[in-house]
Amino acid sequence: MNNLGNATFENYVGSLTGYSEMAYQMSAHVLTLGYAIMLAALFYFILTIKTVAPKYRTSSVLSVVVMVSAFLLLLVQQQNWTGSLSFDPGSATYKLADSSDLFNNGYRYLNWLIDVPMLLFQILFVVTLTKSNFSSVRNQFWFSGAAMILTGYVGQYYEVTSPVTFFIWGTISTLFFVHILILMKRVIDEGKEGAPAQAQKYLGYIWVLFLVSWMLYPGAYLMPYLFSLSLEPALTETAVVGRHITYTIADVSSKVIYGILLTLTAQEMSKAEGYDYEKIETAL
Amino acid sequence: MNNLGNATFENYVGSLTGYSEMAYQMSAHVLTLGYAIMLAALFYFILTIKTVAPKYRTSSVLSVVVMVSAFLLLLVQQQNWTGSLSFDPGSATYKLADSSDLFNNGYRYLNWLIDVPMLLFQILFVVTLTKSNFSSVRNQFWFSGAAMILTGYVGQYYEVTSPVTFFIWGTISTLFFVHILILMKRVIDEGKEGAPAQAQKYLGYIWVLFLVSWMLYPGAYLMPYLFSLSLEPALTETAVVGRHITYTIADVSSKVIYGILLTLTAQEMSKAEGYDYEKIETAL
Repeated sequence: MNNLGNATFENYVGSLTGYSEMAYQMSAHVLTLGYAIMLAALFYFILTIKTVAPKYRTSSVLSVVVMVSAFLLLLVQQQNWTGSLSFDPGSATYKLADSSDLFNNGYRYLNWLIDVPMLLFQILFVVTLTKSNFSSVRNQFWFSGAAMILTGYVGQYYEVTSPVTFFIWGTISTLFFVHILILMKRVIDEGKEGAPAQAQKYLGYIWVLFLVSWMLYPGAYLMPYLFSLSLEPALTETAVVGRHITYTIADVSSKVIYGILLTLTAQEMSKAEGYDYEKIETAL
Repeated sequence: MNNLGNATFENYVGSLTGYSEMAYQMSAHVLTLGYAIMLAALFYFILTIKTVAPKYRTSSVLSVVVMVSAFLLLLVQQQNWTGSLSFDPGSATYKLADSSDLFNNGYRYLNWLIDVPMLLFQILFVVTLTKSNFSSVRNQFWFSGAAMILTGYVGQYYEVTSPVTFFIWGTISTLFFVHILILMKRVIDEGKEGAPAQAQKYLGYIWVLFLVSWMLYPGAYLMPYLFSLSLEPALTETAVVGRHITYTIADVSSKVIYGILLTLTAQEMSKAEGYDYEKIETAL
């Protein structure tokens, strides 16, 4: 095996077999789709901010913050992909380019360092906690959110060179994730109490979406091993493309669709509290 | 030691030992995180401007100015990092690239030349000075702020080639910093008088945040010597990564978190003076 140091498995594949036209392009396109959706959704969240009562607008502001940071970091992530590989006419594959950057998913991770605390914080501006303390839940969200990301970030450097280190960091990260899941379930259950029927329905969707979309991240982290089902990472382009697709689906669901569902929930709550957006906009 | 002239220690490390995958990537990611947070926070300051009474809005405008300039200069700073190094397959490290730019933290310094006067000026639009004269404090802030940055900027060129020159400029810069600290303490103490209780609490946080986050800058300036604890700079990648992380934490705290705390303070003061944002937004 080539010596690429602590490089991710994307680089080892790029150095050993290279990528077929289809695998390379699919990855480039999916990564581009990811940041394009973030920029498009940014406009949605700005333009719909007044459809909810003022006290719910912080949720839209936080969606905007998430969209901007995700847009930029996913843009750089895509450029990192196309910049680290170049077409080799001899083998008709994309190989690791000479004297350039290697590919690393770390841009995503450091994006989550902003987004995860913001996404968890965001729902607290839509639901009303009936039993839990706002500051306590917020601080636990922030602590476990940041700890989950940072431990996963360190772990990913070892995905090829040291599977044991990789799994240990992954396990620590997962413990923080479980804590977040427990907290989120409690927040949503409390939020449903006293909410209008339609808002309760949306909060139910948010829980399912949260559970499924956040579960995709550990799946993507483990991708090289999910494809090998052994203690040797699968150095195949299918696992690489699978990871790009999984991360993109996860990012779009956990940030964009989640934010839209929160806006819809807040709209129902605003209406139930007498905030009439249509009337305000048509008043003379 | 290679002769790189007055280049910073980041280049000497890149020329001598090179950077491991982890050190190079962590730096690239942290630098990217820095400018992404600035652009995301730009939207926060624009979207929350109406939550404070008109007389406090200059503070949000100045945060916007700071975010735009910091975004651009930190973006260039990141590109400077990735552009100055390239992966060397022989050693599996990132080495100083041939015939390209060297790395220099000067982009940060010239960003601070805009930001430091603005950040110091900004608080004067939120607090009410009871004893000090507004114009006098502003002029002292501007003079010492600019002098602190310019002397530090000149000093950093000598961090490898002439430790004595480096420390002399650093010391002069620190004297201006001490002057700023004394002024800021006075501004915050006067601002607390007559402010509502919750605003007083936020102003207390701002003082602690200011003290800690601004102290990180001299720490980052001295980083090569903090790691060697001698009159020879430590040419290690750990010191380089440590400096990038320190600068990023300092920039985010002293610009973004500081600006958010000033917004929260201004919201409390606006409320106490009868400015009701929610009522204005729902009025027919």
